Amino acid sequence: MKTETRDRLRTVSTATVATALFKRGFRIQMIQDVHPLSPDQPVLLGEAFTLRYMPAREDLNTLDVFRDRGHPQRKAIEDCPPGAVMVMDSRKDARAASAGAILVTRLMKRGVAGVVTDGGFRDSAEIAALGFPAYHHRPSAPTNLTLHQAIDINVPIGCGDAPVFPGDVILGDRDGVIAIPAHLADEIAAEAFEMTAYEDFATERVQAGQGIFGLYPATDPKSLEDFAAWRKQNNR
Amino acid sequence: MKTETRDRLRTVSTATVATALFKRGFRIQMIQDVHPLSPDQPVLLGEAFTLRYMPAREDLNTLDVFRDRGHPQRKAIEDCPPGAVMVMDSRKDARAASAGAILVTRLMKRGVAGVVTDGGFRDSAEIAALGFPAYHHRPSAPTNLTLHQAIDINVPIGCGDAPVFPGDVILGDRDGVIAIPAHLADEIAAEAFEMTAYEDFATERVQAGQGIFGLYPATDPKSLEDFAAWRKQNNR
Amino acid sequence: MKTETRDRLRTVSTATVATALFKRGFRIQMIQDVHPLSPDQPVLLGEAFTLRYMPAREDLNTLDVFRDRGHPQRKAIEDCPPGAVMVMDSRKDARAASAGAILVTRLMKRGVAGVVTDGGFRDSAEIAALGFPAYHHRPSAPTNLTLHQAIDINVPIGCGDAPVFPGDVILGDRDGVIAIPAHLADEIAAEAFEMTAYEDFATERVQAGQGIFGLYPATDPKSLEDFAAWRKQNNR
Amino acid sequence: MKTETRDRLRTVSTATVATALFKRGFRIQMIQDVHPLSPDQPVLLGEAFTLRYMPAREDLNTLDVFRDRGHPQRKAIEDCPPGAVMVMDSRKDARAASAGAILVTRLMKRGVAGVVTDGGFRDSAEIAALGFPAYHHRPSAPTNLTLHQAIDINVPIGCGDAPVFPGDVILGDRDGVIAIPAHLADEIAAEAFEMTAYEDFATERVQAGQGIFGLYPATDPKSLEDFAAWRKQNNR
Amino acid sequence: MKTETRDRLRTVSTATVATALFKRGFRIQMIQDVHPLSPDQPVLLGEAFTLRYMPAREDLNTLDVFRDRGHPQRKAIEDCPPGAVMVMDSRKDARAASAGAILVTRLMKRGVAGVVTDGGFRDSAEIAALGFPAYHHRPSAPTNLTLHQAIDINVPIGCGDAPVFPGDVILGDRDGVIAIPAHLADEIAAEAFEMTAYEDFATERVQAGQGIFGLYPATDPKSLEDFAAWRKQNNR
Amino acid sequence: MKTETRDRLRTVSTATVATALFKRGFRIQMIQDVHPLSPDQPVLLGEAFTLRYMPAREDLNTLDVFRDRGHPQRKAIEDCPPGAVMVMDSRKDARAASAGAILVTRLMKRGVAGVVTDGGFRDSAEIAALGFPAYHHRPSAPTNLTLHQAIDINVPIGCGDAPVFPGDVILGDRDGVIAIPAHLADEIAAEAFEMTAYEDFATERVQAGQGIFGLYPATDPKSLEDFAAWRKQNNR
Repeated sequence: MKTETRDRLRTVSTATVATALFKRGFRIQMIQDVHPLSPDQPVLLGEAFTLRYMPAREDLNTLDVFRDRGHPQRKAIEDCPPGAVMVMDSRKDARAASAGAILVTRLMKRGVAGVVTDGGFRDSAEIAALGFPAYHHRPSAPTNLTLHQAIDINVPIGCGDAPVFPGDVILGDRDGVIAIPAHLADEIAAEAFEMTAYEDFATERVQAGQGIFGLYPATDPKSLEDFAAWRKQNNR
Repeated sequence: MKTETRDRLRTVSTATVATALFKRGFRIQMIQDVHPLSPDQPVLLGEAFTLRYMPAREDLNTLDVFRDRGHPQRKAIEDCPPGAVMVMDSRKDARAASAGAILVTRLMKRGVAGVVTDGGFRDSAEIAALGFPAYHHRPSAPTNLTLHQAIDINVPIGCGDAPVFPGDVILGDRDGVIAIPAHLADEIAAEAFEMTAYEDFATERVQAGQGIFGLYPATDPKSLEDFAAWRKQNNR
Repeated sequence: MKTETRDRLRTVSTATVATALFKRGFRIQMIQDVHPLSPDQPVLLGEAFTLRYMPAREDLNTLDVFRDRGHPQRKAIEDCPPGAVMVMDSRKDARAASAGAILVTRLMKRGVAGVVTDGGFRDSAEIAALGFPAYHHRPSAPTNLTLHQAIDINVPIGCGDAPVFPGDVILGDRDGVIAIPAHLADEIAAEAFEMTAYEDFATERVQAGQGIFGLYPATDPKSLEDFAAWRKQNNR
Repeated sequence: MKTETRDRLRTVSTATVATALFKRGFRIQMIQDVHPLSPDQPVLLGEAFTLRYMPAREDLNTLDVFRDRGHPQRKAIEDCPPGAVMVMDSRKDARAASAGAILVTRLMKRGVAGVVTDGGFRDSAEIAALGFPAYHHRPSAPTNLTLHQAIDINVPIGCGDAPVFPGDVILGDRDGVIAIPAHLADEIAAEAFEMTAYEDFATERVQAGQGIFGLYPATDPKSLEDFAAWRKQNNR
Repeated sequence: MKTETRDRLRTVSTATVATALFKRGFRIQMIQDVHPLSPDQPVLLGEAFTLRYMPAREDLNTLDVFRDRGHPQRKAIEDCPPGAVMVMDSRKDARAASAGAILVTRLMKRGVAGVVTDGGFRDSAEIAALGFPAYHHRPSAPTNLTLHQAIDINVPIGCGDAPVFPGDVILGDRDGVIAIPAHLADEIAAEAFEMTAYEDFATERVQAGQGIFGLYPATDPKSLEDFAAWRKQNNR
Repeated sequence: MKTETRDRLRTVSTATVATALFKRGFRIQMIQDVHPLSPDQPVLLGEAFTLRYMPAREDLNTLDVFRDRGHPQRKAIEDCPPGAVMVMDSRKDARAASAGAILVTRLMKRGVAGVVTDGGFRDSAEIAALGFPAYHHRPSAPTNLTLHQAIDINVPIGCGDAPVFPGDVILGDRDGVIAIPAHLADEIAAEAFEMTAYEDFATERVQAGQGIFGLYPATDPKSLEDFAAWRKQNNR
């Protein structure tokens, strides 16, 4: 991801990005029904590195499987590149954990940018306290072996009904998490950055009492003039 | 709504109102599974002004539809009377937003009393910070055009499996939101107000160590005597 | 429950207990999808005392049923032993309340250790403020009579798809609630206590930058040596 | 059940009974989402004899539990009175079977009137071929021990979100199964029998081209006159 | 609808129509999870005439409401034009009926082309025997008054998560029901008719042992030549 | 698969196999909630060849993708070995088709043993008429491109919440479909074959009026003696 793209995406919302993607025909890039573990965690931003779970066959998922350094869950934790976002396909099943605090802490220490599952994390209070961007559906204490077998690293997956390809740009805020197709990241960042300026301007106007007709969207030429003046004034 | 009714309802809970309605044969007036965007937002109270969404047909829901001042979503935002509560039938589908922060801010500035959807709001953190009573199922970033087409203003709707008619009195607290049929608002307010006095009394007694038998409900005459004394003492 | 067992369980997480149970072939002891009413409430710990609800037939569930001291819901509130945890089988149906603040306050005043339902509580904000361990699926204002008839006290039940027998040891933290079969409480407590020491050690190491291979699980003999030293140093 | 009641109920539909119950304030007596195993099976009619399942704890549900004649599932099969209907509370979970062909055949041979579960039966094709009234949600091959532990015989239960008390009169047709509260069976049978006569008359008229206004319901006095004539003519 | 359009649509499948709509950007026109009451019923085809249900408030939904000829459900039955398809928005809730055999028979006798609900019909066996195109989610015996209040006639609705506008062309087969936007009916019919010819040709070839590469889709020029010959030979 | 294993499995039910797997600690091998397209289709038996779908990103799923012979869905249809069963992971989403009649016909003509999806098939009536073992959740007309992108061939997958590995032995009957881990196929076949003999014997006895105690399971030595005689007599 270009630095400029990164800098812009850090300042825009998933809602604005979703609209920019909608304009281009993308309707399902939002990872549905995942939530930040802490309302105070930083913005989530990075390129997707994925982990795929399948249902856990009992004979293949005893506790000693973790003694194998090649176990895909543990390997993924050590392989996920710094700056990337680990995205887990847990088949929207939060009855057992996708991971816990020790693994998430390791991701954080390794410089990974954040972690997302459409299942649940165990040790959720500890993870919430890390100040690390983490998203799940809900807390879930049982070990992943109970229901989830890690099977593939960095393949295309589904997460919360969204398609996620390795390298997609993942952005998360309080509304949730969205996957931006890699080849569109620059143009979406540029457009969302511009849209955000206008939205901030419109929000100010609405806060000041102006109605939405002509302002949002900017069908009144006056709105665009006012916006131009506002940008100058606010260095936006 | 009479001022007296309004004043009383402001001090009672949705739980107490639900019981008063239950006595009269109403079992489904609670809007199911909607939650306040902020735990600190004020009580929600006002008469329902409704907006009905249907599934969004793609050709009728491009971004430029909002350029039309007659678009029902935008029109509803500007038409909802001050003091009313906008209630949105989003078919319990939170995969796309029912509205976002700019529109909700506009409602607030126009003096609207609050907003409820059985779907989700985008820009949920910004809305939560407004200090404005807002309820939804969960945050949802995608633009409403993705799945929801606003089609009717101020018709009877379903919201969270509850029937909501324009003019119904809408009350919301931390437990959620309930719709009081308009013609019953005064008597429900009066009864719930009285019930609340007794509940506060009973809570005090239970906090002081008294058991619930005879006290809750007040089958012991002594309970009613004590309550009478308590009311006098507490000006209730 | 032995004092030692109680003391140990107070310091371990549901996640660790879930793993200790998983080792013994127990996969469904976690009560699914219940949440603490307050993030600040104390740890939940005690032996299960159960209440079973069935769907409420309308003629048997008018408000005056509570005038009967033998009504199972009210009787259960007064009968639940101090130190026990009341666990309610609400058939995973949160459309009506399992109980409200007055009854939960009474439980607290009677010395009960906490309360769990796989439905919802009404007066949820008041309950959250009690500082009493309480878990439900979501807030729900309608009186239990709307949908739930209390029918049995202290029989084996399902709660959140987990089997709960009277006397099972119930442990709850921010991740949720787990039922430990009574006959295993001592050994699970002992094992989880030991596991927790190692997890705390491993967490420290990971925070200090060590990788998980060899450390978690402790396949590297060095890890066990370091752990032994750490225990000595930390009196664990 | 009186013979007359039985004779009448055999000729009426669950739909008609549901309406007669609705008039008396009963809204949830229909067992939701259960289906006949065969479209050709006879009408289901008899008094409820219940079996309650709870989630199956693994250590208590190994295959050898069935060696115990006191096991509640097996005991219930041999105890259910001839003429009764066995109704199973499987917690609406069809992921494992509630029973299979051998047990259902035994019920049939013992003169039991039929069987209902809100879960699923295994050996569904064999059961469908028995000509025995059986209802479930869907076929389910795994042994009940996988998820269901039989725990109580002939207690009040929920089945498909309906309340079912031992002795309730159970009626099933192609639309599904309804529970008639025992004390109302005679009057519901009488009323439904009369309603059915009118419905048959109205159906004939509608088949002959008459409109529904005035006919259904019979607001036009002419309709009642015609009906009287029709009854005489048809010996109804 | 033009006669030619009608004649063509009668011979094509919902699957083929769905693909033709997909090419034009329509993804949600299939009414999800509705099923024919009988596998033998004729093809469903006609223009949509809609009925909207909302949740039934108890005081407004007593049995005597049907005495009013203006009641929207009963009025809709008598107003639906011959040749049209009645489509009911039952909010995907099959816990109570959308209609029963008498009303559906009346629709049939009036020359209506068929009926669709995303809820359920009562008297489902009788309706199945009519030889009339009828689709629902599942059978449901309780009277609609239990949960559904008919509120609007011939407005745009959602049905099974599809948008349905009055006048849309409704087509149903064994796979289910699809809504073709009215302005596209002619071109979709023409295209689907052509596609069907090719699919029939391809099916024959596959039945004869040919592989799908080059044939389906027709990327091999030989396939188009063979198809041209086939059309001539078969008068298609 | 050995011929003997194949011959035995053809004569046993998924229910019996599920019990044999349960004895060995396997609880989730049944593919949940899939149904035969026709009640008359032959038994499904063969080794799994898998296809994995992910959510369909719009830009990668236009109709022309099928022009590519390397498209995983089309390639899988031509690559699936004769005698194998194609098992599709459609993420339990039946809103769009997993495949249609032309592709399923091609599978049949190629000698494939059957097809299973946890989504839905389009052209379901045509597939049902093929006499080919096919299982899905429900019919679904929209092209798979609407929601499903084929992404991987013959990798381990989840299907209906069951783990399915390439080479697992897939068995389907009227109850549904089960995956037997490849390394256990012989012993499961042998054991299920023996169990089936006893079940057939027990069924005969129950049909003849014998009770289940001592017979099912065979805790009475007399039952085993009778069974030995029955086997001799029936050449089993």
